[in-house]
Amino acid sequence: MSSPEKTKVTILGSTGSVGVNALKVIEANQDQFEVVGLTAHRNIELLSEQIRRFRPKAAAVGDAEDGERLAHLLGGHAVEIGTGVEALIRCATQAEVHVVVSAIVGAAGLVPTLSAVEAGKRVALANKETLVMAGRLVMAEAQRCGAEIIPVDSEHSAVYQCLAGEKRNRIRRIILTASGGPFHGRSREEMAHITPREALRHPRWEMGQKITIDSATLMNKGLEVIEARWLFDLAAEQVDIVIHPESIVHSMVEFGDGSVLAQMGLPDMRTPIAYALGYPRRLETGLSPLNLVAEGPLTFHEPDRQSFSCIDLAYEAIAADGLMPTVLNAANEVAVSAFLKKKIAFLQIPDLISETMACFEAKDYTTVEDVLRTDLKARKTMRELIAQKGL
Amino acid sequence: MSSPEKTKVTILGSTGSVGVNALKVIEANQDQFEVVGLTAHRNIELLSEQIRRFRPKAAAVGDAEDGERLAHLLGGHAVEIGTGVEALIRCATQAEVHVVVSAIVGAAGLVPTLSAVEAGKRVALANKETLVMAGRLVMAEAQRCGAEIIPVDSEHSAVYQCLAGEKRNRIRRIILTASGGPFHGRSREEMAHITPREALRHPRWEMGQKITIDSATLMNKGLEVIEARWLFDLAAEQVDIVIHPESIVHSMVEFGDGSVLAQMGLPDMRTPIAYALGYPRRLETGLSPLNLVAEGPLTFHEPDRQSFSCIDLAYEAIAADGLMPTVLNAANEVAVSAFLKKKIAFLQIPDLISETMACFEAKDYTTVEDVLRTDLKARKTMRELIAQKGL
Repeated sequence: MSSPEKTKVTILGSTGSVGVNALKVIEANQDQFEVVGLTAHRNIELLSEQIRRFRPKAAAVGDAEDGERLAHLLGGHAVEIGTGVEALIRCATQAEVHVVVSAIVGAAGLVPTLSAVEAGKRVALANKETLVMAGRLVMAEAQRCGAEIIPVDSEHSAVYQCLAGEKRNRIRRIILTASGGPFHGRSREEMAHITPREALRHPRWEMGQKITIDSATLMNKGLEVIEARWLFDLAAEQVDIVIHPESIVHSMVEFGDGSVLAQMGLPDMRTPIAYALGYPRRLETGLSPLNLVAEGPLTFHEPDRQSFSCIDLAYEAIAADGLMPTVLNAANEVAVSAFLKKKIAFLQIPDLISETMACFEAKDYTTVEDVLRTDLKARKTMRELIAQKGL
Repeated sequence: MSSPEKTKVTILGSTGSVGVNALKVIEANQDQFEVVGLTAHRNIELLSEQIRRFRPKAAAVGDAEDGERLAHLLGGHAVEIGTGVEALIRCATQAEVHVVVSAIVGAAGLVPTLSAVEAGKRVALANKETLVMAGRLVMAEAQRCGAEIIPVDSEHSAVYQCLAGEKRNRIRRIILTASGGPFHGRSREEMAHITPREALRHPRWEMGQKITIDSATLMNKGLEVIEARWLFDLAAEQVDIVIHPESIVHSMVEFGDGSVLAQMGLPDMRTPIAYALGYPRRLETGLSPLNLVAEGPLTFHEPDRQSFSCIDLAYEAIAADGLMPTVLNAANEVAVSAFLKKKIAFLQIPDLISETMACFEAKDYTTVEDVLRTDLKARKTMRELIAQKGL
């Protein structure tokens, strides 16, 4: 409990919403945690403030130009600044690091996260793509290297919390909750003319743009099904989705005896982050108690898989196995980005992902290079489809 | 997992609703459990059927007359039949017994349950009175004798399940759910003329008469607060009550990090019974999956402590400490029985309990004899009050 040594933490992607909240949790528990590495891709101003405040030994940014800007902003502040993937990996694998918060958004998170896993670190995993793109490889490496992967996604954290102290072979199924996003209840026709602005207005969670669009298409939930399949070693049929617009029940586990455990709370990322940092201890977060009388009633609905076809695409990718989830993920990233730039319509996101998937066979893979190669190929295919069929 | 030795179980009170359901769970898991003792107070016919079916070595009934009736019904079937408290204790403490299901209703359950605790057995505890009357003593004995007490009440089982794998010092509070009973939403005035028949119509759970009336007055929840206080070593302020008419969330635990774990399920006693029998493994119960879309929405309300004053009486008894919970419990048992016989009105249940409590000081106790003496005294006081003030 009162070990004199603090837990040393590196945050990959410290200026995004998960990174910022992770630093809030660490700040509230300064007696127990110490930041030793911070990395950011674009927001150099915020990174420089974070470095002044948390005094990590190492920092990493995208390229040399950003490195120089950071050095300039920091003045004489002592920190080792690196650039590119190599620097990310160095931050993730420093010998003294205990926990790596993997909070880079998108496929760029895979390689540094995998390096943390291979270094045997505890990985507080917020980067969905790591497991979506290369779940089999990453989980096998985690086992081989003795790395703990503790999810930071509120849904998977909920499942992880429900499974503490349980025998995993007694899981009947897990039930991931989905807020339903801003378009819950609409038919396909009613979603034809959705603008990026409308899609970015999420009713419950404040998140980055990419994830907010994924929430609107429900691809977010599809990716989470793939993640959960790997994280908890389940068959796709054991992962269900239920729409729960109040976002109070973060997810559930049903056991063979008919019992369902659920983790609930106000929608605040600090809870799952604190759980992943402190596990098996729970940290104090200072969050106000959940008042179910005020937050309820809690409602649950079947997802509309017809209108939100991204869900079925994810189950298809799991069924195809091999690299198909990698294709799905790459195609989705490109599609979301094109939608945000108004190059494609909202409903073209699932439609073009489906077309991209149809261009690939579900080949097996053994290395991260295979994964990255397929990732690039799928992006290229999607970009070509957008060029042909976009607005 | 596949130990050849079966878990040997004695059920104290096998003909009541918990006992019958425990036997259903055992029957569904015959490869893992063996019944070695069964006891009943009145329903000798059912006991004799159970003995023929489960072939325990020992049985106990209330008195010699029932013993003879049982022997007659059983014909030549070999079973050792005992009578009275001594026989209950023998059944609970047989050397080979692993688990004692304590399912006797009322104060009569205390002594045999305590004897099982002192014999170091796992006690699957359905008898509320054991902890309400003598919580401090029983928990201290459990610790001293290495006995595990695993609750069978759906609410406490829920809390126990939520706490598996958790550090108990991180509990902020537990939240016991209450269906609210058949009179949820009524004012005191509207409850003046409630008949036993109306009070016995519980909307969600099928239970014995005593507990059904306790559910209608919400004394059931008050007794559960006292139980929880002992079982989980909490202050009274850490035990909250929320009305949840759907009875799907069986109870919750809130931790210091803002996270709330909940255990849910269809209202069926087999789930908590199976949990207590199989812990830390979960048994297959064959219960159908929980369909939250069909069962929801889940609603939560503050309890109306004005109209249902039994709740505050329970908190008062905890605050007074010592033997006051024993007084509360004894007074309640007598009051419920008088209400069922139409000797007092529904609202006189809390009113006369309060008057009984006012006649006692909250003396400390060290032995079960102290507890039983106070129990008898409180019953006498309540009976006198009923004679004076009853209908």
